[in-house]
Amino acid sequence: MSLLTVGTVAFDTIETPYGRAERVVGGACTYISWAASYFTNDINLVSIVGDDFPQDEIMALNSRGVNTEGLEIVEGKKSFFWEGKYHENMNQRDTITTDLNVLADFDPVLPASYKDSRYIMLGNLTPEIQSKVMDQLDDPKLIVMDTMNFWMDVALEPLKQAIARVDVLTINDEEARQLSGEYSLVNAADKIHDMGPRFLIIKKGEHGALLFHEGNIFSAPALPLARVNDPTGAGDSFAGGFIGHLASTDDVSFENMKRAVIQGSVAASFCVEEFSIGRLKSLTKNDIERRVEAFKSLVAFDL
Amino acid sequence: MSLLTVGTVAFDTIETPYGRAERVVGGACTYISWAASYFTNDINLVSIVGDDFPQDEIMALNSRGVNTEGLEIVEGKKSFFWEGKYHENMNQRDTITTDLNVLADFDPVLPASYKDSRYIMLGNLTPEIQSKVMDQLDDPKLIVMDTMNFWMDVALEPLKQAIARVDVLTINDEEARQLSGEYSLVNAADKIHDMGPRFLIIKKGEHGALLFHEGNIFSAPALPLARVNDPTGAGDSFAGGFIGHLASTDDVSFENMKRAVIQGSVAASFCVEEFSIGRLKSLTKNDIERRVEAFKSLVAFDL
Repeated sequence: MSLLTVGTVAFDTIETPYGRAERVVGGACTYISWAASYFTNDINLVSIVGDDFPQDEIMALNSRGVNTEGLEIVEGKKSFFWEGKYHENMNQRDTITTDLNVLADFDPVLPASYKDSRYIMLGNLTPEIQSKVMDQLDDPKLIVMDTMNFWMDVALEPLKQAIARVDVLTINDEEARQLSGEYSLVNAADKIHDMGPRFLIIKKGEHGALLFHEGNIFSAPALPLARVNDPTGAGDSFAGGFIGHLASTDDVSFENMKRAVIQGSVAASFCVEEFSIGRLKSLTKNDIERRVEAFKSLVAFDL
Repeated sequence: MSLLTVGTVAFDTIETPYGRAERVVGGACTYISWAASYFTNDINLVSIVGDDFPQDEIMALNSRGVNTEGLEIVEGKKSFFWEGKYHENMNQRDTITTDLNVLADFDPVLPASYKDSRYIMLGNLTPEIQSKVMDQLDDPKLIVMDTMNFWMDVALEPLKQAIARVDVLTINDEEARQLSGEYSLVNAADKIHDMGPRFLIIKKGEHGALLFHEGNIFSAPALPLARVNDPTGAGDSFAGGFIGHLASTDDVSFENMKRAVIQGSVAASFCVEEFSIGRLKSLTKNDIERRVEAFKSLVAFDL
């Protein structure tokens, strides 16, 4: 089924304990679309870049089945740019620079051919923009929304209005606690369900992810890794693998959501192996299948 | 097979966001023995208390198959006492009081009938005492050792000497990082294997536990709970369920270790439901079986 992805397409400069990458391709929508492209070739991308964004990166997405008719290219302006430096533990990072550039004026207008998209992945953006995209959809089957603590701090009401309209919310554990005011993630999930989303995914980084739905909980592990070269985009890759699996199977049952969480975890585990989208660009179906098997054996027990 | 448990038997005063318990029964060996008693009734306890420790608590252990011949009772002295206060998030706590009392002179001498114990659970104590217990064993089949960061700070060499002699080390993630000097838990496990233990269990509290053995990894979830009333003894209950399962099945294969990790996780999940050993005292086989099923369904997916 058709998949619509919205979010940033951007440049990042990233420093981690294992290296530095200058002005490499980044952005939530980039990671989402690349990860999803291993599951479906019917992806409608909505984003904005300046005239500095490389045409060959756009063509690489096109070759993966990503329609970029909805990628607005603003002449004479620059793409969104983020520079960050990760601490030794990789769980914390300092933002060095955030240049909104074209993103300051982003007002997405969906191409006519996008409006009947069935699976929707709203990458992290202002909640107003996420709502504007939802306003333009004819008949979405499943809307998944990612967000972050920043919008809870500065735009809580618009954020709650957007959250009320989505089927699946993906946030991390600290964000779930902040949004709900509950420390226990079980209680946090109850409160967040009351805000609208039938499904809640709480991402816990190196500790995996939890999926909550109608009193059921699924706990997905993260793959323990000897080395994380660059965590940037891990959450977005998770989102891409997750929604890619759902769009390709067109099944929104809890059982299939569990599979989608594993596929998201697999995508995230690849993402962090290299800087930028390096690893996501070079995956094969076989790589993914073997990694799925690794996840299976990681949690398998017979008792 | 016979199980030997060593550690503190003590009083605790505990304050958590959900209540306060004054001078209740605590101690690593208490939690270990209670949790293990649901798997085997051939348990040899080694510890020390003052004459203030209630006889009916000792008899309650006896009735569960715990031999307390190795419980030294020092007339005219007091039992070990710890008072702690947990923060809102339950992952951090402040120690208010630590009165070593009888523990200051603890020099365990194993009763003759204990020496042929096959499964050994060394609860957290000074590494010197843990080594002294190992010195007195005739033919242990599996030695499991728990410890904590405190001994890494003040007694690293004796700790390393003890660790070199054990089969399984159980520590938390921060302790694994401190002991190995490696941030990645995969690399930390490699270094700790080199120190001696064939098996390493890294406890991650609300994030579950990881079992490492010869390049294999098993990831056990923690049960997401709406409310943790008292986390005290969760790690010791884990150790008790873990070694209890192993002693009762007499199988130290990786596959069976995985089952033991789940049984440990089940025991820990019960422990935190009530203050002190309240919940551990009232368990039934049926409670445990149902909780095992909950763990199974928590991680089950078919992909």
